[in-house]
Amino acid sequence: MSQFAHYQPGEYAQEHIRITPTTLSDGREFFYLDDEPDYVCGKKTRQLVDPRDLPYRFAPHLDADGNDVPYAAPQMRRDPLTGDWIPMATARMNRPITIGPGATATGNPLAARKPGDPYQDGEVPDTDYDVVVFENRFPSMVQVPGVPNETVDVDGSPLWLQRPASGRCEVICFDPNEHGLPADLPVERLRTVVEAWAFRTAELSAIDGLEQVYVFENHGQEIGVSLAHPHGQIYAYPFIAPKLEQELKHTEAYHERTGGNLLADIMRAEIDAGERVIMRNGSWVAYVPAAARWPLEVQVQPLRDVRTLDELNDQERWDLAQMYSQLLKRGNMFFDTGDGKGMDLPYIAAWHQAPVHDPRGEHYRLNLQFFSFRRAANKIKYLAGSESGMAAWVSDTTPELIAQRFHELGAVDLD
Amino acid sequence: MSQFAHYQPGEYAQEHIRITPTTLSDGREFFYLDDEPDYVCGKKTRQLVDPRDLPYRFAPHLDADGNDVPYAAPQMRRDPLTGDWIPMATARMNRPITIGPGATATGNPLAARKPGDPYQDGEVPDTDYDVVVFENRFPSMVQVPGVPNETVDVDGSPLWLQRPASGRCEVICFDPNEHGLPADLPVERLRTVVEAWAFRTAELSAIDGLEQVYVFENHGQEIGVSLAHPHGQIYAYPFIAPKLEQELKHTEAYHERTGGNLLADIMRAEIDAGERVIMRNGSWVAYVPAAARWPLEVQVQPLRDVRTLDELNDQERWDLAQMYSQLLKRGNMFFDTGDGKGMDLPYIAAWHQAPVHDPRGEHYRLNLQFFSFRRAANKIKYLAGSESGMAAWVSDTTPELIAQRFHELGAVDLD
Repeated sequence: MSQFAHYQPGEYAQEHIRITPTTLSDGREFFYLDDEPDYVCGKKTRQLVDPRDLPYRFAPHLDADGNDVPYAAPQMRRDPLTGDWIPMATARMNRPITIGPGATATGNPLAARKPGDPYQDGEVPDTDYDVVVFENRFPSMVQVPGVPNETVDVDGSPLWLQRPASGRCEVICFDPNEHGLPADLPVERLRTVVEAWAFRTAELSAIDGLEQVYVFENHGQEIGVSLAHPHGQIYAYPFIAPKLEQELKHTEAYHERTGGNLLADIMRAEIDAGERVIMRNGSWVAYVPAAARWPLEVQVQPLRDVRTLDELNDQERWDLAQMYSQLLKRGNMFFDTGDGKGMDLPYIAAWHQAPVHDPRGEHYRLNLQFFSFRRAANKIKYLAGSESGMAAWVSDTTPELIAQRFHELGAVDLD
Repeated sequence: MSQFAHYQPGEYAQEHIRITPTTLSDGREFFYLDDEPDYVCGKKTRQLVDPRDLPYRFAPHLDADGNDVPYAAPQMRRDPLTGDWIPMATARMNRPITIGPGATATGNPLAARKPGDPYQDGEVPDTDYDVVVFENRFPSMVQVPGVPNETVDVDGSPLWLQRPASGRCEVICFDPNEHGLPADLPVERLRTVVEAWAFRTAELSAIDGLEQVYVFENHGQEIGVSLAHPHGQIYAYPFIAPKLEQELKHTEAYHERTGGNLLADIMRAEIDAGERVIMRNGSWVAYVPAAARWPLEVQVQPLRDVRTLDELNDQERWDLAQMYSQLLKRGNMFFDTGDGKGMDLPYIAAWHQAPVHDPRGEHYRLNLQFFSFRRAANKIKYLAGSESGMAAWVSDTTPELIAQRFHELGAVDLD
């Protein structure tokens, strides 16, 4: 039996991964996922007490005049012209900033605590870890106890709806080595990362009011990532994000028209066409989508009909770790750096899962959309007027050319 | 009577702006829009002959073996998961590049021709100009004579539709001074720019197969603009761009539900609320939308029900030039640079017009969406995993704070 109400570890995870929950001193949830045998068997244990004396995360704070100001729950507003909800991270502006841009403290908050290190605001209580997951200290969306999830009109106009941005933001650290790259992690460690994705998907999906669990990774300074530490994020939105909504409209319409599953049929068509398939193993296939929009873009799908990360079985989780490792390694070699050494590719890895409650999720299917802003070793694709203003992407290349480059970098069959 | 079939200049333009069409040596259309009296009255005339000896733009080219390769019309594919058409600028890869990234030639192709200047590949035949508009030399979309506008299946699968990206891309140079900023142009020159927008909207809307005329401006190196020369662009898409499509769905549903025009009602609600209105004159109002998503975002609407730029009357065109000038000036002062001098704000100005043929345009309304990636004088807002991967914007501020800053920078009433 799992200690968690909704996450059921498979046979492998039961034997080889131990999850230890704790609470940080400001009240945030924190989880160790250990894959080292001494921790899994309980011979060694993790430090559970956060030695920092942080104020309760939702505590009122003092203003300049010394008055208590209640914690301001972040809000979101609905854009009437598009229907999109826009979370506004105002709460961040009302609290003292100790890490991040404009900080006084320095150091890497994702590192394990180093006794004697002058930086004493690390998020990890222990002096070492394997994989950890915890709630973001500066969330753009958060469920605040006691704040009712009510929708109100802005300025009395029913055109503008506003309600608390009652989602959840989590951070996943992939490895304690802050200078490592995800591409260089052993497959075994990535397997633990995959378990973290599944674990959090299961648990977050059970929280009232969360509609979509979005597991993603921003990698690279070019996209504004300030911490080099290998990590990913989870946004659990209290709505269905516009891109998934658009996809659900199409998968549902396709199902109504054909009775089929659009994502499964796309996958089969890609396998049949063959030209754009770049990797395969026993459980997964990776291909450059036939209408790719980024200079480097790969879509990864499980061969079996699976809707969410926590539905993957043990074998599929292992095969995913293997394929993801290969994808990152080949991605780093994709652009010609002249010296044959490759580069640290900036990328975004976006896990599209079926929504938590929306019944259209029945005809959706788990898929990873992996892409890069890079268009050459020394060039960035900018999202200019067409992309940013009209959401109309213009590709500078073709899917077949992207696939051709991947074919030069390694065999399609990984088994 | 206008010399153009679809563009009807108003009284002011008839008397004060002269449009002179010509053809560049590779076959592209080119237009001078002159506002200097000597050119308007015909005392002086413009150089019409492009002195360059460029090959015909759609000519076959020779490959490495000396064989003729037919001009490859750019194609676009439909993404089955979103319904979006993705133009693929493959034609650009098949032709010799003489300007732009990877070029051998140097210089500013948007400058007026300077006799004796070593750069001999300027796009403007004359040695001076006021405003010019011409077809982009390296278009991502173009109508190629003799290429049928047929839709085909990619790899035999009906999931993937492909057809020629038979749109049109034009460049508008706002001023001959390549070091000037749009914010520093006299209102009279911006008035001529507005006339260029109206002129091209009228003419492009009449071309078979174009569905949306998108007038926009990318400004600033931070968004990848390599030419500092003050200029804008027009993309005439052979489809309705995803963002406009999303807006049309909402304006149409609103009309069906209420009988009203959503954009007009938003405008009236903003005027009633008042707090976010930042500028007004006799014809226009500018406000920070109640659900703004960018760190600096302004929406500008005409007070009168107008669907497209060419429907604006003389007074509205003048008032627009005045307001646009103020918007750019205040935009440059928006972020605190410490020295009180302001900065050259990077921005995207996106004109949303009613689509050319779609009947839903009846309940749409012209509006400018103006925004910046800047979130502080020295910081950029990056489009990371949530925005790029899920189209879910997270704002770092609030619309009211944006409006408050604009209020510090100048009076709301411009008249």
